[in-house]
Amino acid sequence: MKTVKDYIRTIADFPHEGIMFRDVTTLFADARGFRMAIDQLLNPYAGMRIDKVVGLEARGFILGGAIAHQLSVGFVPIRKKGKLPGAVISQAYTLEYGEAVMEVHDDALQAGEKVLIVDDLLATGGTCEAGIRLCERLGAEIVGCAFVIDLPDLGGRALLEKLGMKVHVLCDFEGA
Amino acid sequence: MKTVKDYIRTIADFPHEGIMFRDVTTLFADARGFRMAIDQLLNPYAGMRIDKVVGLEARGFILGGAIAHQLSVGFVPIRKKGKLPGAVISQAYTLEYGEAVMEVHDDALQAGEKVLIVDDLLATGGTCEAGIRLCERLGAEIVGCAFVIDLPDLGGRALLEKLGMKVHVLCDFEGA
Repeated sequence: MKTVKDYIRTIADFPHEGIMFRDVTTLFADARGFRMAIDQLLNPYAGMRIDKVVGLEARGFILGGAIAHQLSVGFVPIRKKGKLPGAVISQAYTLEYGEAVMEVHDDALQAGEKVLIVDDLLATGGTCEAGIRLCERLGAEIVGCAFVIDLPDLGGRALLEKLGMKVHVLCDFEGA
Repeated sequence: MKTVKDYIRTIADFPHEGIMFRDVTTLFADARGFRMAIDQLLNPYAGMRIDKVVGLEARGFILGGAIAHQLSVGFVPIRKKGKLPGAVISQAYTLEYGEAVMEVHDDALQAGEKVLIVDDLLATGGTCEAGIRLCERLGAEIVGCAFVIDLPDLGGRALLEKLGMKVHVLCDFEGA
């Protein structure tokens, strides 16, 4: 029986030379693969209180929409700078070259709400760290951070755990 | 009891002056609102065969992920140019000023597959028309196009119906 990892396709040299891109679209496009991924992402949280699912732009929206629906809770997007229409709070983070900014609506989470953060891929953890800080600045409590893929060589998991996060991943790939 | 439309917030002058932006994030963030939207989007398709759900970047990913999960089928993203890692086919469409390009992986849909296209907002219909053409070029049959919001003054619904599409919307707003 195929595992979640078996459904993931690797594309060489995307977005630039030397990168082995782990492509989850082949997982999402498969009925069994997609359902299995959602089920497994939710496994550790059975019986726990989750008030909202937070998804990181853009592939985290696909997973987050499905997970929020499965849990019958609301979904909150964290987006790249300038995409959200209402009043936002912003958080900068470091990229390989330079800096980027993630944003959340300033009324998207209430103090004390329990949230699950989801994305497809944990690499350096920079985007997720920005997401964590945004949720915490709104007073939310983060129940966990769930990813389909971890790239352990890039250290994201260690970074998030240093921030006190519980990290859940379905599979990992060596290298960047 | 609040309707789907009641959960949608209007933000004046986003993304630029004179635009009344219909913001679905307040709908998605509400547990009842989000579930109601997904249920109502699926209403017309009860008992019909749907093989895959196609979501248009980026808010269509949130809805599409939830709908695909609800139907236990696969999800296929249609993205802006340059975002998909594998081999793609591209479709240009006209914007208010200039042109944009949407893409889909060239192996994301099989000939004869029945697909439902989803997005949050139907405005001029340009993005969705590009999505329709991409699906049809891969040989898929489009069961319908479902949106949370229609802006009828912008003519998108008429355009899509002229292409032979069955269009399903949950609510509409006057003006652009």
